[in-house]
Amino acid sequence: MDDTQFLARIRAELFTCVIGDVMDTMGLIHQFLPPRIRPVDPDMVIVGRAMPVLEADCATPRIGHLDEHRAFGIMFDALDDLKRDEVYVCSGGSDTYAQWGELMSTRAAKLGAAGAVLNGRHRDTLGIRRLGFPTFSFGPYGQDQGVRGRVIDYRCTIEFPNGVRVHTGDIVFGDIDGVVIVPHSKEQEIIDAALEKVRGENKVRSAIEDGMSTRDAFDKYGVM
Amino acid sequence: MDDTQFLARIRAELFTCVIGDVMDTMGLIHQFLPPRIRPVDPDMVIVGRAMPVLEADCATPRIGHLDEHRAFGIMFDALDDLKRDEVYVCSGGSDTYAQWGELMSTRAAKLGAAGAVLNGRHRDTLGIRRLGFPTFSFGPYGQDQGVRGRVIDYRCTIEFPNGVRVHTGDIVFGDIDGVVIVPHSKEQEIIDAALEKVRGENKVRSAIEDGMSTRDAFDKYGVM
Amino acid sequence: MDDTQFLARIRAELFTCVIGDVMDTMGLIHQFLPPRIRPVDPDMVIVGRAMPVLEADCATPRIGHLDEHRAFGIMFDALDDLKRDEVYVCSGGSDTYAQWGELMSTRAAKLGAAGAVLNGRHRDTLGIRRLGFPTFSFGPYGQDQGVRGRVIDYRCTIEFPNGVRVHTGDIVFGDIDGVVIVPHSKEQEIIDAALEKVRGENKVRSAIEDGMSTRDAFDKYGVM
Amino acid sequence: MDDTQFLARIRAELFTCVIGDVMDTMGLIHQFLPPRIRPVDPDMVIVGRAMPVLEADCATPRIGHLDEHRAFGIMFDALDDLKRDEVYVCSGGSDTYAQWGELMSTRAAKLGAAGAVLNGRHRDTLGIRRLGFPTFSFGPYGQDQGVRGRVIDYRCTIEFPNGVRVHTGDIVFGDIDGVVIVPHSKEQEIIDAALEKVRGENKVRSAIEDGMSTRDAFDKYGVM
Amino acid sequence: MDDTQFLARIRAELFTCVIGDVMDTMGLIHQFLPPRIRPVDPDMVIVGRAMPVLEADCATPRIGHLDEHRAFGIMFDALDDLKRDEVYVCSGGSDTYAQWGELMSTRAAKLGAAGAVLNGRHRDTLGIRRLGFPTFSFGPYGQDQGVRGRVIDYRCTIEFPNGVRVHTGDIVFGDIDGVVIVPHSKEQEIIDAALEKVRGENKVRSAIEDGMSTRDAFDKYGVM
Amino acid sequence: MDDTQFLARIRAELFTCVIGDVMDTMGLIHQFLPPRIRPVDPDMVIVGRAMPVLEADCATPRIGHLDEHRAFGIMFDALDDLKRDEVYVCSGGSDTYAQWGELMSTRAAKLGAAGAVLNGRHRDTLGIRRLGFPTFSFGPYGQDQGVRGRVIDYRCTIEFPNGVRVHTGDIVFGDIDGVVIVPHSKEQEIIDAALEKVRGENKVRSAIEDGMSTRDAFDKYGVM
Repeated sequence: MDDTQFLARIRAELFTCVIGDVMDTMGLIHQFLPPRIRPVDPDMVIVGRAMPVLEADCATPRIGHLDEHRAFGIMFDALDDLKRDEVYVCSGGSDTYAQWGELMSTRAAKLGAAGAVLNGRHRDTLGIRRLGFPTFSFGPYGQDQGVRGRVIDYRCTIEFPNGVRVHTGDIVFGDIDGVVIVPHSKEQEIIDAALEKVRGENKVRSAIEDGMSTRDAFDKYGVM
Repeated sequence: MDDTQFLARIRAELFTCVIGDVMDTMGLIHQFLPPRIRPVDPDMVIVGRAMPVLEADCATPRIGHLDEHRAFGIMFDALDDLKRDEVYVCSGGSDTYAQWGELMSTRAAKLGAAGAVLNGRHRDTLGIRRLGFPTFSFGPYGQDQGVRGRVIDYRCTIEFPNGVRVHTGDIVFGDIDGVVIVPHSKEQEIIDAALEKVRGENKVRSAIEDGMSTRDAFDKYGVM
Repeated sequence: MDDTQFLARIRAELFTCVIGDVMDTMGLIHQFLPPRIRPVDPDMVIVGRAMPVLEADCATPRIGHLDEHRAFGIMFDALDDLKRDEVYVCSGGSDTYAQWGELMSTRAAKLGAAGAVLNGRHRDTLGIRRLGFPTFSFGPYGQDQGVRGRVIDYRCTIEFPNGVRVHTGDIVFGDIDGVVIVPHSKEQEIIDAALEKVRGENKVRSAIEDGMSTRDAFDKYGVM
Repeated sequence: MDDTQFLARIRAELFTCVIGDVMDTMGLIHQFLPPRIRPVDPDMVIVGRAMPVLEADCATPRIGHLDEHRAFGIMFDALDDLKRDEVYVCSGGSDTYAQWGELMSTRAAKLGAAGAVLNGRHRDTLGIRRLGFPTFSFGPYGQDQGVRGRVIDYRCTIEFPNGVRVHTGDIVFGDIDGVVIVPHSKEQEIIDAALEKVRGENKVRSAIEDGMSTRDAFDKYGVM
Repeated sequence: MDDTQFLARIRAELFTCVIGDVMDTMGLIHQFLPPRIRPVDPDMVIVGRAMPVLEADCATPRIGHLDEHRAFGIMFDALDDLKRDEVYVCSGGSDTYAQWGELMSTRAAKLGAAGAVLNGRHRDTLGIRRLGFPTFSFGPYGQDQGVRGRVIDYRCTIEFPNGVRVHTGDIVFGDIDGVVIVPHSKEQEIIDAALEKVRGENKVRSAIEDGMSTRDAFDKYGVM
Repeated sequence: MDDTQFLARIRAELFTCVIGDVMDTMGLIHQFLPPRIRPVDPDMVIVGRAMPVLEADCATPRIGHLDEHRAFGIMFDALDDLKRDEVYVCSGGSDTYAQWGELMSTRAAKLGAAGAVLNGRHRDTLGIRRLGFPTFSFGPYGQDQGVRGRVIDYRCTIEFPNGVRVHTGDIVFGDIDGVVIVPHSKEQEIIDAALEKVRGENKVRSAIEDGMSTRDAFDKYGVM
């Protein structure tokens, strides 16, 4: 099974909640990105490999003439470097401008990328929807990043405000319940345990539907 | 008319805004839960009786081995104790984990409960939607409560951060415009006045559609 | 081309993002209202002329008997004064009550107004949707403004918390990506430049779809 | 013992913490004003009777010509109406302007008022210190209220954002640990119980200094 | 009178509040920096000319090996370029690292600079106090800027989050009540009006001390 | 040199900033507790070994009769278990009640503890100052923890909201610039490097005082 098939299996059989549960029991308790990061369309799902991007925000916008080459600079390099099944994961942080839009989505889709995850906002919502390019963000905002922020590095390790670290190559899994990061070094163990837990939860669900109390169900199956 | 019929009439003829207006005029100005608490699906409506649950949040997660029996403890008791037409109303407070999910919804639905209202997040959004179990929360987040929070009491009086108190047996009414609490002791007076106000608003609406100014409409009908 | 036709052309051919980009290059960097202000329905669009309304919030609600004439006072005058193609733009600021609802929408629609934009919340979501009256706000909340806020002026210049100023007669343009204010005095220059930029972006999109890198596309077309 | 003597005894023998403890045991759990409200000088103490003032904040400042009579209006009436031993308690709410300053302090001191408590900021810090007029606020900020806020009522009941209500005549007690409100109707019972508790705490302190464990001390004296 | 004497007169005869009042009446309502920016010692005063510095914050720290030359880069140039009577005014924005410390103060003092104003934190509090170098900030925090932020420009126009713009050469005036910016182009008019207003306030103070009501004093002197 | 002497040397020769700098270069970038945690008196210093305490906050206070034994329960055990040179480090999290006060300080001092560090508030400020017991917190607030929070574990690993972990036995070092945690396993290496860096900074300071530019000083000494 190659990596694309492996990622496809995660998409087909798992969901983010169960992966989070499994990592909690392993002591990996900082793996969900902040709850503000939501899919542009509720049925968008991302499963791919992280290509982290480090963005710095100007607390105050750059006022006056805009040198567009310097403004966008390394962002073009980061975008053009995306590989098949990779996810553009931007550290961002600002609420006041968009780090991603339709033209960036168009390029990323052309390169076979799996999606974009932004610790910040996107724009061109209608264009992104038309493309169906999976994008997770704080929500839409039309204000551009040109004078307000700057990509300063990529393929580096980044860290989200809630302490989640993302390394190049980690699995990025996003669905309706949020975005979870699966560290590359432990991914096989985590995915196997999650597949196992799904089976346990199905038994609990059936038992509860048949009238079993949650306490009895937990005592019997050890899963909740 | 039994209580189930009484609650059904509220659902059929009233909406939360008009009930809030009536309570404002009675000086009951803290009856809407915080605006962050929203329905999982926009057309979900809850009308039921409060079963309050007191949850404490760990500011910092419990790190290391998880004793699952202690972690979930009294939550199972609270859930299994739900009665027909009751609403699980959890004080919670944290933005960073889910207090409610699909399996809990499955059990609550089995017991005839009317819904769940959370001062915090839910998870398993797709499962809750499939069940159609009315749930109001800050929104979805897959991170589990096991290491992050704990139910410490239920069938007690709780208070939301904006000062709204919820007692066991109060009416909980949630729709697209929020969740309002109707104190049990004054519920008949409030519901009667709300039914009356709805009739007044219908007249104002017709008058405005016929071109009457808002000032004239308010002077004539005393409602806006 | 009269003003209604001019506004209709903006609606047909432009979107808020491109207008923001054009104003950024002119040094007009504070023209988007705060990102919390969202359409009630995602496909609502507003293009109209600003009729600014200044609202003061009571940090603490007025407790006790409500003098409804004083409570709503000048709000009725502001509402009844709306002209065709105008937008009710309310400075508000509070998260805890609704500044707009169904009856206000009914009156505004009757007067030919183009929409309502609130630095705060709306209520009667279902009624507003039924009317299809374009409304942008922080989201729904049923709690009424009667005891919580007060309109104190209108047709005055107002300023949003992020520094955006709105003068009577400025163009208000809201779509899925936010609400942008086009100053009346420079509107012709801005709209012309935006129409031009849209043409440039279409070329970039085609080039990227044909496989051109973002760097090459920016170097060739000077647009991104 | 007249009221001035009664207030002086509170100042001499009690402190805010013990009064809060006593009210907690009576179920009066919302009596401390928000923790942001601090004394201008750490050794300032207020003991007096509340004269509540209701202030509305403009979310956006009033831009353009300032009508100073309308701007300050009822604030002058409120200030000139202060009686001996009363405290100017302003609901305010804004972080961005001062509700109180040196000239107001000068007038209040002349009238024998006991202090000012602001849910907001003060200015003229040096002047207030020179006067030694007890003032509690969010801290200093030189920006004036003229174009930013407005007193709209006084000698009314007000409510702080954390749910504390202040009625005309309630005891206002502020020291280094915060500001606590003692409801007029229960003040005798509360003050008596606090005087009693202070005696118990002295015994616990001595016991702990002699080496008793906190558990033993609590078991023996029932106070902590 | 040369510029150093002009600045000294402001320091000797004026204070920030009165300058803010004068600018409010001229419609210059965004001239006070945010209230979080406080003097390191309460008696520190700054009067000087702005030398603005633009800093970008990494939402997430740079993890891994630190290239110190790149990390501090242009900050050294900005610091070494300070002229006599100038103030280092840094846009910053982050709460989580220090933009200023003892060694920077030592260099700035050597160059005759008038102070430092930070939209962020300082460190080495004891060293700064020993030097007596006037510094205004969010408060102390020992965490260094090396991996967390970066100076990207200086002698440029910057803008604070509350909309205040600072240009090279504007007067920066900070005292116990905050920091106010006087635009260079209107400074003579503003300073003259402030000197005049101080005289009026002295009359009002005397009148109030003699028992005049605030309403009468305002009616007679037009100042409050 | 025993541990008490080792801690005394840190107190005598080092300060928190330099320890943070050294850990930054080692990639230990999350070692400062949040900047809100400040000394009760500015000259208080803590150097000791962590005794972590896990506290859960009730988002809503417990209303009604207070079972004081359950309310304080394990807190007494934690407090009575403090050893010489240990620091009570409480995870807390709430802004609305005090986790520490005079009687707790009295007991801790009796046991030879080195201080208390609270992710929350303290009370009895005057009593703590009289004792001179080193306490770091969000600031004073008289409201008691009885009905608002609960200690649920101690001598466990805790984590602060900004991601700093504290294990039993780590060095806790607090001074005017904040509180930094030195992991026990690397403490010798860190302290040695900090002592070395202090010597380098002294040379830089002298050079700058002699007129060397910051750029030249950094190029020559590699320290800033």
